[in-house]
Amino acid sequence: MPIVMVNIKEGRTVEQKRAMVTGMTKVVSETMDVPQSAVRIIINEMKGENFAIAGTLVCDAPAK
Amino acid sequence: MPIVMVNIKEGRTVEQKRAMVTGMTKVVSETMDVPQSAVRIIINEMKGENFAIAGTLVCDAPAK
Amino acid sequence: MPIVMVNIKEGRTVEQKRAMVTGMTKVVSETMDVPQSAVRIIINEMKGENFAIAGTLVCDAPAK
Amino acid sequence: MPIVMVNIKEGRTVEQKRAMVTGMTKVVSETMDVPQSAVRIIINEMKGENFAIAGTLVCDAPAK
Amino acid sequence: MPIVMVNIKEGRTVEQKRAMVTGMTKVVSETMDVPQSAVRIIINEMKGENFAIAGTLVCDAPAK
Amino acid sequence: MPIVMVNIKEGRTVEQKRAMVTGMTKVVSETMDVPQSAVRIIINEMKGENFAIAGTLVCDAPAK
Repeated sequence: MPIVMVNIKEGRTVEQKRAMVTGMTKVVSETMDVPQSAVRIIINEMKGENFAIAGTLVCDAPAK
Repeated sequence: MPIVMVNIKEGRTVEQKRAMVTGMTKVVSETMDVPQSAVRIIINEMKGENFAIAGTLVCDAPAK
Repeated sequence: MPIVMVNIKEGRTVEQKRAMVTGMTKVVSETMDVPQSAVRIIINEMKGENFAIAGTLVCDAPAK
Repeated sequence: MPIVMVNIKEGRTVEQKRAMVTGMTKVVSETMDVPQSAVRIIINEMKGENFAIAGTLVCDAPAK
Repeated sequence: MPIVMVNIKEGRTVEQKRAMVTGMTKVVSETMDVPQSAVRIIINEMKGENFAIAGTLVCDAPAK
Repeated sequence: MPIVMVNIKEGRTVEQKRAMVTGMTKVVSETMDVPQSAVRIIINEMKGENFAIAGTLVCDAPAK
């Protein structure tokens, strides 16, 4: 039943996504007391120009 | 008024999308008792590596 | 696989919702060529003060 | 940066939610290589009459 | 055309919501070059136990 | 705290997006009485074939 949508900045590898959905499904299954088979996860990848923090587009933020 | 967001795996044709939004708008209009002109539908297409069922990315699932 | 989120104004009956999800699932199944068992639908009910059209809250709009 | 929305059936305790967001934040932080402080999680609770699987409202599904 | 969903903590007055949708519609209309009549805004109100920052539910965070 | 998702048709410039998130963050901050630093905005760009009004895909609508 649980349906999760994760908004992340684009650029992650498939391996990172694989590890995230595996770990996230386990957490949701254990804490919400549902079988892992019931869990769905949607990943939404955001370009730097499509995400803003404190009024500034991420693509405009100074590099860390 | 009704606003619908449909998450589907990428790869459908424009014809399939056309048929879906036509049929979906009709159903929503009739069951929610609103004119078709009030219905908005957003389609979100997901890559295989951006959708997981039961902890497995769709791109990793064995071909059917 | 298809996951649908429907935003509607609150106040519909369970019968209306039942008819909507039945019809919507059929349309999605037929047009997206997936079994009905793969379709998930989430209904989000909105209070009149939580939905605005053209800058006006629905609860403030003149009665039709 | 990561923003997560989790759709679950209503009825979970605050303790369950607490455990879920703690575990989920840890997974996202580790796999997406971001500090936990960057992670936001929104929980959307669904009534049985507002969620459908395979065309059937959860409130209509036979009790397990 | 633009459809906006705003997730906020519950507890705001209708007056605050009114001011927000008025101002937001104006900004979207002017910057996206669309008439205000095309803008739709959905407000999603979150309970303190349904929103987490850095792994902590807002209802558990120390009062400011 | 406020998290905003804006669905717009693709094709806008980064300058338009910059102006939108700046103005929108200001409005949300002032009306919701939160610091601008708390506001997050996600922009979802829609292809003409992924958005329908009144049952018609935007890519099928007659040019204005």
